Amino acid sequence: MKDARPKYEVDLEPIGRRAEIAPGQTLLDATRSAGVDLEALCGGEGWCHSCVVRLVRGDLNSPSLAERDALTPEQLASGFRFACQAVPLGDVKVDIPPESLTAQQRLSIEGQEVLIRPEPAVTRLDLDVPVPTLHDLRSDASRLCDGISAAGFAAPDLPLAVLQDLSGQLRRQGWHAGLAIRGPRPEVGAHRGELVAVLAPRAELFGLAVDIGTTKLAAYLVNLADGHTVAKAGAMNPQIGYGEDVVSRIAYCFEHRDGRSVLQATVIESLNALAAQLCAEAGAKSEQVVDAVVVGNTAMHHLFAGLPIDQLGQAPYVAAVSDPLDLRARDLGLKLAPGAYVHLPANVAGFVGADHVAMAAATGAWETPRTIVALDIGTNTEVTLARGGHFWCCSCASGPAFEGAHIKDGMRAAPGAIERIAISDGKPYLKTIGDRPPVGICGSGILDAVSELFRAGIINRKGMLDEGAPGVGRTDGVLEFTLAPGPATGHGKPLVITRKDINEIQLAKAAIRTGVDILLYESRCSFEDIEEFTIAGAFGTYLDVSSSVRIGMFPPLPLDRFHQVGNAAGAGARQMLVSLARREAAARLARRAEYVELTVHPEFTHKYMKALYLD
Amino acid sequence: MKDARPKYEVDLEPIGRRAEIAPGQTLLDATRSAGVDLEALCGGEGWCHSCVVRLVRGDLNSPSLAERDALTPEQLASGFRFACQAVPLGDVKVDIPPESLTAQQRLSIEGQEVLIRPEPAVTRLDLDVPVPTLHDLRSDASRLCDGISAAGFAAPDLPLAVLQDLSGQLRRQGWHAGLAIRGPRPEVGAHRGELVAVLAPRAELFGLAVDIGTTKLAAYLVNLADGHTVAKAGAMNPQIGYGEDVVSRIAYCFEHRDGRSVLQATVIESLNALAAQLCAEAGAKSEQVVDAVVVGNTAMHHLFAGLPIDQLGQAPYVAAVSDPLDLRARDLGLKLAPGAYVHLPANVAGFVGADHVAMAAATGAWETPRTIVALDIGTNTEVTLARGGHFWCCSCASGPAFEGAHIKDGMRAAPGAIERIAISDGKPYLKTIGDRPPVGICGSGILDAVSELFRAGIINRKGMLDEGAPGVGRTDGVLEFTLAPGPATGHGKPLVITRKDINEIQLAKAAIRTGVDILLYESRCSFEDIEEFTIAGAFGTYLDVSSSVRIGMFPPLPLDRFHQVGNAAGAGARQMLVSLARREAAARLARRAEYVELTVHPEFTHKYMKALYLD
Repeated sequence: MKDARPKYEVDLEPIGRRAEIAPGQTLLDATRSAGVDLEALCGGEGWCHSCVVRLVRGDLNSPSLAERDALTPEQLASGFRFACQAVPLGDVKVDIPPESLTAQQRLSIEGQEVLIRPEPAVTRLDLDVPVPTLHDLRSDASRLCDGISAAGFAAPDLPLAVLQDLSGQLRRQGWHAGLAIRGPRPEVGAHRGELVAVLAPRAELFGLAVDIGTTKLAAYLVNLADGHTVAKAGAMNPQIGYGEDVVSRIAYCFEHRDGRSVLQATVIESLNALAAQLCAEAGAKSEQVVDAVVVGNTAMHHLFAGLPIDQLGQAPYVAAVSDPLDLRARDLGLKLAPGAYVHLPANVAGFVGADHVAMAAATGAWETPRTIVALDIGTNTEVTLARGGHFWCCSCASGPAFEGAHIKDGMRAAPGAIERIAISDGKPYLKTIGDRPPVGICGSGILDAVSELFRAGIINRKGMLDEGAPGVGRTDGVLEFTLAPGPATGHGKPLVITRKDINEIQLAKAAIRTGVDILLYESRCSFEDIEEFTIAGAFGTYLDVSSSVRIGMFPPLPLDRFHQVGNAAGAGARQMLVSLARREAAARLARRAEYVELTVHPEFTHKYMKALYLD
Repeated sequence: MKDARPKYEVDLEPIGRRAEIAPGQTLLDATRSAGVDLEALCGGEGWCHSCVVRLVRGDLNSPSLAERDALTPEQLASGFRFACQAVPLGDVKVDIPPESLTAQQRLSIEGQEVLIRPEPAVTRLDLDVPVPTLHDLRSDASRLCDGISAAGFAAPDLPLAVLQDLSGQLRRQGWHAGLAIRGPRPEVGAHRGELVAVLAPRAELFGLAVDIGTTKLAAYLVNLADGHTVAKAGAMNPQIGYGEDVVSRIAYCFEHRDGRSVLQATVIESLNALAAQLCAEAGAKSEQVVDAVVVGNTAMHHLFAGLPIDQLGQAPYVAAVSDPLDLRARDLGLKLAPGAYVHLPANVAGFVGADHVAMAAATGAWETPRTIVALDIGTNTEVTLARGGHFWCCSCASGPAFEGAHIKDGMRAAPGAIERIAISDGKPYLKTIGDRPPVGICGSGILDAVSELFRAGIINRKGMLDEGAPGVGRTDGVLEFTLAPGPATGHGKPLVITRKDINEIQLAKAAIRTGVDILLYESRCSFEDIEEFTIAGAFGTYLDVSSSVRIGMFPPLPLDRFHQVGNAAGAGARQMLVSLARREAAARLARRAEYVELTVHPEFTHKYMKALYLD
């Protein structure tokens, strides 16, 4: 029996899902029914400003008072609305900015295909090789190369690892071969064309893209012919066992003679396991993985390649190598095709690594004429400013506060962590990861807390708590604001924000803002000139931009200039895997980037002191 | 008190020794007093024709009857004499052809310097590298390359193995470095300039030349700046434990899954030990060994490089690789400078290896307009014929008879082995290695025996023993000729030559002569056209050329066209180590060589049957 009630169709872009709703239901209802998880801290009351969407086609009810309060007339004219307030009047299509999605949803969006023209380093040539006879006694290598030449291609170099299996492989396959050949593309790298693997004819070629984070590894298996990501997987970086952060791993290597090779071996082992898992998922053999791109910060890059990191731990903190490297996977112990290379994009400096270059390249900084800022927040926050084809980079010592370290009730972003906080009438509203009872506060929650405490007037611009304000009290003589009393938490202990916690956030946000400001100074422009402000990385995906702007961590730009792009380093790695042009673009970007050493910059102290204030 | 008796000075060339003799003494006396060991089997009676020398300056007595019998008028006119017959009439200078020296003496001559213009692959650049500061944050690699560019040189590639130690090395040396740089010489090999090692300033650079024989390893440490060999050493090839000859090692690899890597590891281990020994002798560090050239037959070449040899054991017996290879020493497990390469010259075919190419290159075959034959006798005898810039090669299945195998009383060339035999009036005269009581017969002795038995009419042209001849008898019904009765031997048992022994030699010599004849056929010339006939290798050094000619193993050319050059493969390897031009010459030679497969040649059976006869 046909349902007679009218239904409106809601197309949700760029995710590509469709919902049906009844008249009178909101766009938030539509997203919920489609399984799209929008931020909606206030539960649809319109005051948390976090479910912003943009109407692309169709009609909605008129903006509510809450929307007219929060959004500018220009934004309203552009179609921006709160999903919880907007009611379709017929079929509509709306665009959901990534910043309106919950972090988990954003990370899945990040997995979307990067559609660029495939121009991989390695391509396949199917060939029938002449069989040896007593009248044709050419060596196996010669008959193969002659065959390649006869097919109209330049004969490639045959690396030892390929030669060692060539004779057996050709015979096992009855002299029919699918040859994976690297290059020749003299414009990229120093290497002539090389044979990477001898496979079965018509075997598909894959590449491995890896982002080695200090904490996490992300690996992607990509079909090189069409650029499609066929499998992806993550794992903890096992080097954590030797030091939580970069500095302690440098110390480990300094103190242990074999430290460097131990740390290298442990990450290579994990990557081999990840690669095997991805191959199994995709039904591919490891020999079909004929190319790889690996990005990471300079220390992760050096440890992956077995390069020394001692000098990264002592002033003036220089990298061993900054140019792009093409290393044989086999030399590193990576189990891919016998002749596969691993491309490591350039570093800019000891603390501006290939992951940042990959991120900047992925965001299009290398090709835009616009003025953009791109940053990746971590213990060190790398910032790039691109303006008119010039690039300035710096690294800010933002510390581990946003990872929950040095914060009284801080914790990593894990189930039960408070990730969103709003304060209304002095009362905190909390959202935890996994909607569990709160057990701690992760970086985005701490950021929100400081921002909301400031907005509510509970702390002043110096970060000092107002002892008379609601929720503020003392424990053991220390001033603190209670986010959740003991009975409301997962472990029965109250969760608080202390004066010291607030101070940690001030130090961190001041470091980041100072970096941005000094790059603006170097590029002779002001913050209003920034046309795009891109925030990459895990924490950058979770944080609330409004909160960040309110406490002065980011300059006070219109919110639509901010873009939270998730793991852009991984996306950049995948782009470089699929496209030699992207590798060259990243190399150019790194070569032309001017590294600005903040600690010796004449403006540093002045700007940093100013940035410690919350406004 | 001054010695009043007159003395004559005798200069011995090319050895460069000087002797003083009394009037009336012979040149043989002179050589003996100078410690130069001439062949003189007859003890100075003039009938063994083995102590030929050539007068360069001064006067000698008139030629004896023995000399006028044995030497042609042209030879006499050119100054050729027997040292045992020639008596100086004043100060003289004489030239001693290598074939007149005993084998041991010849081998020491072979060690003489090869004086060619040094043009090594790796040269040194001393450099002061700018020290990093907070105002100069270039990576270590970049500051090094910039420094090289500033010194007016092309910046080299920095291979991973060098990068891994670069930062520490530069700091330990206070930023002063002696850089070993390979190339750039785009005309040789595919590799751009590369940094091979970071040494102390003014550190000497050495190269390692190796000849991997199936039985023996020979290694030479050469100063790359002047081409001087600073140390040399030999050892048994440890692969003998897995099979005496090439065929049994191929079988071992076929039967054992890890056979190839076991055989590779064992020879690499021995070479590392040899290299360490040479470095210790020369007072060099292994990092100062910045280049290497390794030659060997195709199977030894393949096993050294970890290449498969299964296909060398099955028709049509093709090599896995025939082009020259430049492999990283590190990839092979050789402990040299971190970025050192090993150059492996080209093979021509499955059974004409890089050692033969090296030998042919060392003998100058690659540059001469003359018609020359160069061969290296072993279980397989490789022959090259060069004529007017063209090259023909073949491999003859000469078998192991000349190594003493398949011969009743045969043995390797070791102390107590009969190495020379003359038969006069039916009575054998013997010379053993080390002048010990005979215990067996080595290859050169067997060759002499057959030749002398034929000359004395004790065997006919078919190799059949004359039962009525002196010394011929039967044991257990088998005809044999007694070389030494039991009481005269080292072990108390008689030493004999049997009909079957003679037959083995006939098979071996027929194989070699057929190879030479078919190359003559292919090159459209006759044996009289051969202007030089070069015999290389250990056995080639020990054998008696006259005997070889008499039994038809070599064509009946004037004896002065024969040259016994010792381990020319090792000499060729040293030349290629010192000179890139020599590498290119060898590569050209191999590329242009036409390999002639004897077994399918239409003339083979006919010529082989004919060559079985002794005349």
